[in-house]
Amino acid sequence: MKAEIISVGTELLLGKTVNTDTTIIALELSRIGIDLLHACTVGDNPQRLKEAIDLALSRSDILITTGGLGPTADDLTKETLAKAAGKKLVLHKESFLRLQKQFPSLAMTPDQEKQAWLPEGAYVLLNDNGTAPGCAFETEDGKLIMMFPGPPSELEPMLKNYAVPYLLKDTREVIVSHNVHVFGKGEGPVANMIADLLESSNPTVAPYAKEGEMFVRVTAKAENEKAADEMCAPIIEEIKRRVGNFVYGVDCDSLEKLVVNLLNKQHKTIATAESCTGGLLAKRITDISGSSAVFETGCVTYANKTKEMLLGVPHETLEAHGAVSYETAKAMAEGIVKLSGADIGVGITGIAGPGGGTPEKPVGLVYIGISDGKNTYVKARKPFSRLKNREWHRHVSASDALDMVRRYLTGLPVIE
Amino acid sequence: MKAEIISVGTELLLGKTVNTDTTIIALELSRIGIDLLHACTVGDNPQRLKEAIDLALSRSDILITTGGLGPTADDLTKETLAKAAGKKLVLHKESFLRLQKQFPSLAMTPDQEKQAWLPEGAYVLLNDNGTAPGCAFETEDGKLIMMFPGPPSELEPMLKNYAVPYLLKDTREVIVSHNVHVFGKGEGPVANMIADLLESSNPTVAPYAKEGEMFVRVTAKAENEKAADEMCAPIIEEIKRRVGNFVYGVDCDSLEKLVVNLLNKQHKTIATAESCTGGLLAKRITDISGSSAVFETGCVTYANKTKEMLLGVPHETLEAHGAVSYETAKAMAEGIVKLSGADIGVGITGIAGPGGGTPEKPVGLVYIGISDGKNTYVKARKPFSRLKNREWHRHVSASDALDMVRRYLTGLPVIE
Repeated sequence: MKAEIISVGTELLLGKTVNTDTTIIALELSRIGIDLLHACTVGDNPQRLKEAIDLALSRSDILITTGGLGPTADDLTKETLAKAAGKKLVLHKESFLRLQKQFPSLAMTPDQEKQAWLPEGAYVLLNDNGTAPGCAFETEDGKLIMMFPGPPSELEPMLKNYAVPYLLKDTREVIVSHNVHVFGKGEGPVANMIADLLESSNPTVAPYAKEGEMFVRVTAKAENEKAADEMCAPIIEEIKRRVGNFVYGVDCDSLEKLVVNLLNKQHKTIATAESCTGGLLAKRITDISGSSAVFETGCVTYANKTKEMLLGVPHETLEAHGAVSYETAKAMAEGIVKLSGADIGVGITGIAGPGGGTPEKPVGLVYIGISDGKNTYVKARKPFSRLKNREWHRHVSASDALDMVRRYLTGLPVIE
Repeated sequence: MKAEIISVGTELLLGKTVNTDTTIIALELSRIGIDLLHACTVGDNPQRLKEAIDLALSRSDILITTGGLGPTADDLTKETLAKAAGKKLVLHKESFLRLQKQFPSLAMTPDQEKQAWLPEGAYVLLNDNGTAPGCAFETEDGKLIMMFPGPPSELEPMLKNYAVPYLLKDTREVIVSHNVHVFGKGEGPVANMIADLLESSNPTVAPYAKEGEMFVRVTAKAENEKAADEMCAPIIEEIKRRVGNFVYGVDCDSLEKLVVNLLNKQHKTIATAESCTGGLLAKRITDISGSSAVFETGCVTYANKTKEMLLGVPHETLEAHGAVSYETAKAMAEGIVKLSGADIGVGITGIAGPGGGTPEKPVGLVYIGISDGKNTYVKARKPFSRLKNREWHRHVSASDALDMVRRYLTGLPVIE
């Protein structure tokens, strides 16, 4: 099965938008063993889109398009594809009713209704996060065409929840993937630790970089899920054995989800005191539905006077060591525990950049403290690359704090 | 001048790497007035690469490739391109010497030396951040071919410092785009308000959805930037006239950037008290480098007891009206002003979901208060879609709060 993606949108060719849709789809296709051989981008131009479609249908078995399904005049993908595939567009009643149900307050203009017109006989891919449904249909000569909306927040769940099951419906084989998540060791070093495993064919083992962390994906093909899982299990164990405490979980969505689950299980609460991360850590904890049981209080103490006022960081500490220091991180972690009464307090202070760096305290230097009221652990994150930006420093500092909490809650050395 | 990009690399088709190279190049090309009409991705496969090259040379004036210039065996771009263009590869002495000078520690294996072999007569694009030089050369029938290394950290400076100056000698037209940013009206409704403008050809006018907001892009072609700007100006004014107070800016990156700039200009400070957004608003404000001048204090008061303890929300208010209420949002906004001494306080409380909704207080109901200590404005956000998710409710609630602050600071009705 050879697949091809056509991304539709002038914004992509003007550099206004990064094409993450292609990456999201590519990752899923490779997971389920479909070869993606081409990915093209064309603007909102019917003629060039038609040429791209004709070429794709001439060389690929599956054509996937992203974008151009919206209500506006330059959303032309559906019309152009239907014409190229010799299909009429018909009003899909359920999609129309769903549109009305989903968006009671939505003025159902002809433009809005246009989104419920789909190629005749198409299988509808529900859009749980937006208005335009996707769909899948076959051409006369048996090529499969799938259409997705452009916004990643709409495309990704549609792909995983509806399109992938549809793609797998005829295959007898099942494909099972498990991700071994690692924090504190990069893609390169981990790849070296498991170089021999990367050679195996079924299960396949592949390393992936993820912002500030990495994961190893183990994928097995078998006649049923249980058999595939049994093929993955020993490989996963071997990876955990080699990478050790840096493995934070298997198939857990994120460090924040893992930490919230651990806190829930242990009936513990956490509170945050953030300077350079500016609320990002609290945001990531509260991204997790149900976090209210473990998270009650967060403070963003961006200014020194706020660190003193809310957290009781001693004025002398800030004077003597500065806001970005081991001592301040320690006082912030201990202060938020006192203030909130939580079981665990986290304090983060550092220099996210781009400004504010000095030779002694360069951009990227971040101190992270975690305290349970009795013991406090403080880690200094040293910048290892001048190429990393503010967003990266903030994200990885928050991840590092979550990983320290993970280690604390599971009885591992908090700092390694 | 019609340009086309071919990105070479199997990792792009496996979803291991996001193709930011195309975005970087696209942005520069549109800036200097070269039309990018196609962008394709192929794996490290000589046959498919050759097909992509032949197609590109048949329909485009400029072919730009990224990736596949490195020392390893699967780096085949140069060989394949040279063959397709009927050029011999010759050792480029200066590049070879530069390679030795740049990387004295580099073992000059035949593989490493391979990077200094370039198509005969090629113009070399220096790589100041890596080993593989890029190059530009013309085919017999006058098509321009440019090769760039894959890593963005090598490609971007090579493009801006060497390739763009090389390209500019051939170009006359420039394209200028301006984005009119709108919050509070969606892509569909705005498209209807400016339907006639969407028809125009130069400048072109196109609406784009952005998470929870939208922008209208106005793009003009002219012989120079000033002339293009003058063509855009009246259209932009007309869009602002029709969409009114919902336009929050032109070419401003984001609501948070706009608000931080307004606060800086007016020497005002802001403080945040967040429940359902869980720190996201503080995070977005502190995403902006330099926000420390206007943001000192944020509280994430997720639990009722924290709302009482930190913000002084009366116990009776929480008892009588609940945490998600007009009265609580008002008390939170006023409380954070008192606590922080900031000029403006924001309080957000709501139900982000997926759990916690009731018929009276459904998921997506959010109350946003902003207070200057004297006056307090409270807005109720009613969910317009039952199918937006937690992340969306949180993001748009934070955006709405920022928009209310924008309206307050610019003397517009805070609630409209």
